[in-house]
Amino acid sequence: MNWKPSAHPHHTLQAQISSWIAGRIEHGDWTSGTRLPPQRELASRFGVNRSTVQAALDELKADGLLESRQGSGVFVSGSAWNALLTRSQPNWQRHIRASVHKPNRHTIRLINGSEPDPSFIRLGTGELSPDLLPAKEFEDSLRDLRLDSRALGYSEPLGSLRLRLALCRHLESLGIFAKPENICIVSGALQALQLIAVGLLEEGSTVFHESLSYLNSVHPFQSAGMRMLSFRQEPQLKEKLVRATRGRQSLLYAVPTLNNPTGHSWSALERSHVYNVCSELRIPIVEDDVYRDLLFAPGLPPIKAADSSGQVLYLGSLSKSLSPGLRIGWVVAPSPVAARLADVKMQTDYGSSAFSQEIAAHWLESGLHQRNTERLRGELGLRAAFVQETLHASFRGLAEWNSPEGGFYIWLRFLRPIVDKSFFRLLLNRKILINPGYLYDPDDQHHIRLSYAYASYEEMRTGLEALRQEAERAGNC
Amino acid sequence: MNWKPSAHPHHTLQAQISSWIAGRIEHGDWTSGTRLPPQRELASRFGVNRSTVQAALDELKADGLLESRQGSGVFVSGSAWNALLTRSQPNWQRHIRASVHKPNRHTIRLINGSEPDPSFIRLGTGELSPDLLPAKEFEDSLRDLRLDSRALGYSEPLGSLRLRLALCRHLESLGIFAKPENICIVSGALQALQLIAVGLLEEGSTVFHESLSYLNSVHPFQSAGMRMLSFRQEPQLKEKLVRATRGRQSLLYAVPTLNNPTGHSWSALERSHVYNVCSELRIPIVEDDVYRDLLFAPGLPPIKAADSSGQVLYLGSLSKSLSPGLRIGWVVAPSPVAARLADVKMQTDYGSSAFSQEIAAHWLESGLHQRNTERLRGELGLRAAFVQETLHASFRGLAEWNSPEGGFYIWLRFLRPIVDKSFFRLLLNRKILINPGYLYDPDDQHHIRLSYAYASYEEMRTGLEALRQEAERAGNC
Ligand SMILES: Cc1ncc(COP(=O)(O)O)c(C=O)c1O
Ligand SMILES: Cc1ncc(COP(=O)(O)O)c(C=O)c1O
Repeated sequence: MNWKPSAHPHHTLQAQISSWIAGRIEHGDWTSGTRLPPQRELASRFGVNRSTVQAALDELKADGLLESRQGSGVFVSGSAWNALLTRSQPNWQRHIRASVHKPNRHTIRLINGSEPDPSFIRLGTGELSPDLLPAKEFEDSLRDLRLDSRALGYSEPLGSLRLRLALCRHLESLGIFAKPENICIVSGALQALQLIAVGLLEEGSTVFHESLSYLNSVHPFQSAGMRMLSFRQEPQLKEKLVRATRGRQSLLYAVPTLNNPTGHSWSALERSHVYNVCSELRIPIVEDDVYRDLLFAPGLPPIKAADSSGQVLYLGSLSKSLSPGLRIGWVVAPSPVAARLADVKMQTDYGSSAFSQEIAAHWLESGLHQRNTERLRGELGLRAAFVQETLHASFRGLAEWNSPEGGFYIWLRFLRPIVDKSFFRLLLNRKILINPGYLYDPDDQHHIRLSYAYASYEEMRTGLEALRQEAERAGNC
Repeated sequence: MNWKPSAHPHHTLQAQISSWIAGRIEHGDWTSGTRLPPQRELASRFGVNRSTVQAALDELKADGLLESRQGSGVFVSGSAWNALLTRSQPNWQRHIRASVHKPNRHTIRLINGSEPDPSFIRLGTGELSPDLLPAKEFEDSLRDLRLDSRALGYSEPLGSLRLRLALCRHLESLGIFAKPENICIVSGALQALQLIAVGLLEEGSTVFHESLSYLNSVHPFQSAGMRMLSFRQEPQLKEKLVRATRGRQSLLYAVPTLNNPTGHSWSALERSHVYNVCSELRIPIVEDDVYRDLLFAPGLPPIKAADSSGQVLYLGSLSKSLSPGLRIGWVVAPSPVAARLADVKMQTDYGSSAFSQEIAAHWLESGLHQRNTERLRGELGLRAAFVQETLHASFRGLAEWNSPEGGFYIWLRFLRPIVDKSFFRLLLNRKILINPGYLYDPDDQHHIRLSYAYASYEEMRTGLEALRQEAERAGNC
């Protein structure tokens, strides 16, 4: 044992130590039950601080490779084999783990872990409350469903023709004139991003995104080895993009209508500026428009509606306006691109659920979907008004916000930089779940994404009161 | 333009030329509408045969980058931008394209392209005939479905608890004692392979598979950069595996019951030998058991049933025994592995369709699934008997085969090596689709995978007669 970690540009001493130890176990040098030398000894052999050794061992314990036994030290755990399997780090997990979002990922895990517990009040959840989901109407509509036995088989690569035709009509109402061959059905918009990442970009491509972006909370592009860069609306946009792409492939991702997390929508000028710059530079735009159905008042048309050159890949989904459980979304694209995405999808999962596709088609064709979104806009509008009243009554002087134009979110800005991990934890201990701004911009300490879509009115009242208390306390420290 | 292709171990002259031209277009040196120099001139500038230039240009035309205009030469096409997007080659497409299966892929594309045309007789399709799918029963069962509004939201990472509980009981009947936390619901067994590839293995790992394997027709592991090696049942298996893994991560994939394409099942001895060898070497086994429900008579238990050490990842699916359109499959694994796969799945598509999961749970719980598989076994048995009678009557002296023990397939061996691409094409021209053996083993020229699951009796009669004629003709050449 005369190995030592050394200064390295990409790997910390801790990471080197933990992977060296994992290597010993993996290669069978240290078998289950082996007792490790004491930390002091390891520290001196490795020539590092004891705290570094401790951190490396903690990491391996968390991964299940090591275990402490009270009073007698640290051992290779009995289930190390399983743990090893789990620990093996393929390319994309490595990307995710090595990414700058590590602390965020931990917050997300805490959120995901608490969400199933109904005693938590969910003030941040980007999902419709069960009360808002049309469960009864779904049950009824299933009675009207006619299933062609062909629909039960493996699907066409692009997805159900019936659904694609229904979507053509739906898209027409948004000013997008697509043919069925321009549409690829996907299992939700997140899968669309995944397919675009692996199907259209090469490793090392650049993905531009808004600085506050859904892409900071999920990692389809990072996992595929893309470089992420944020862009701003500014006159020098073109020059900045040119400089940043360095002649390599790139793509621009945006949510121009009802952004997640800010709820903000782009102006007409901003839409055309970004479109023109990207057209000139031949940078494809991914326009993620999953919240459009939830605009309280008619908004600006999608960028895709003005897209004459097949520059824009347009994403939609039924998750926000009907049911996330359907897992139905779509990409509108030039037909060869749609075919390519469909080909990758077939190789991934042989297509989306035929049942979900038939149900989605039925809801779109029959007008059920439209009636449902009208109802939802009404209900969400009332919820938004309620939250704003509460904010007016008790958050003035503490925070500021814009009146939402639709969707689920208020991007609440606390005047003081109080929103850090410990603020999140304080609320977590009070069984209140928030989505802190640092999930969407690692440097942010002012914001939370407040969702009026999920919690009940009573929960929102209680939750906001607790939020106010903690914010005042934090602001006074 | 003084670039020239040169001899290269991995890239043919044609490939070098076509990617050089694509580069000119991509970098904007040759814009849409640019006329290319005549082929003769290009050939002399590049120092290659004219036929090589021609092949490179054809490739670029097929990809949509170039277009011929009658009488006036070859031009950069107007839609080159779209084509470029489509042509961009990310990592996994590169893997697939660069893989040795190129010609196979072309055959698969021809098959996929012809399948939607109902005038084709499909003698190879690995799918139940629409007549065998319980469309009516599905419609009826939808009436009995009770949808909890929670089931319409985003799903738990491992999938619907109700479905996992139903699967626990189903698995128990196979001798597999799993708890809900050992089960990860996936959108079909293919997705399970995908998740295993990116979630549990690092690039460059070795995947062992039977020489005739489903994995030769789909590429989840190759796409993720794994090395594929076939293994045989032999006393030296252990030594061979040790030598081949070279100390790197590896995994063994097998279909021990009713293999696709051969229909073959392993003996009890073969099962325990492979299990013991892999246990000793700590090589995880992926046991793909999607055809089990279709055994005509009770078969040997799954390897997983004897797995005491969490060595085996067990895959099942409803695609073969209920409906591929459901897109419901499962992985049974040690709980940390199941959790890992679920985590990767959430990052890919936020879970499988809640509707499909509810329907699947309902069919499993209510006994509908079991009654349906009983019916299917009967129907498939009759179809298998019919095909064998036909073979007996008209293929003796021409081919040989084993009597199927279940599933969809007869692995028909022609005595002469006649099954090549042109044989496939001859039948394609007669509107008969077969799955040639070379899809499953690139060197095979003797076999076709005959499926008695898809075509109608009348189609099977006509199709087999045409097959006999072409086989006799080919054998006489
Ligand atoms: C902007 C945005 N895009 C995509 C998604 C993913 O939605 P789906 O359920 O369609 O995958 C979300 C959901 O949070 C979102 O906010
Ligand atoms: C051996 C084997 N495994 C997996 C699959 C994929 O099935 P699923 O539809 O569950 O993804 C197939 C289907 O052809 C198969 O033959």
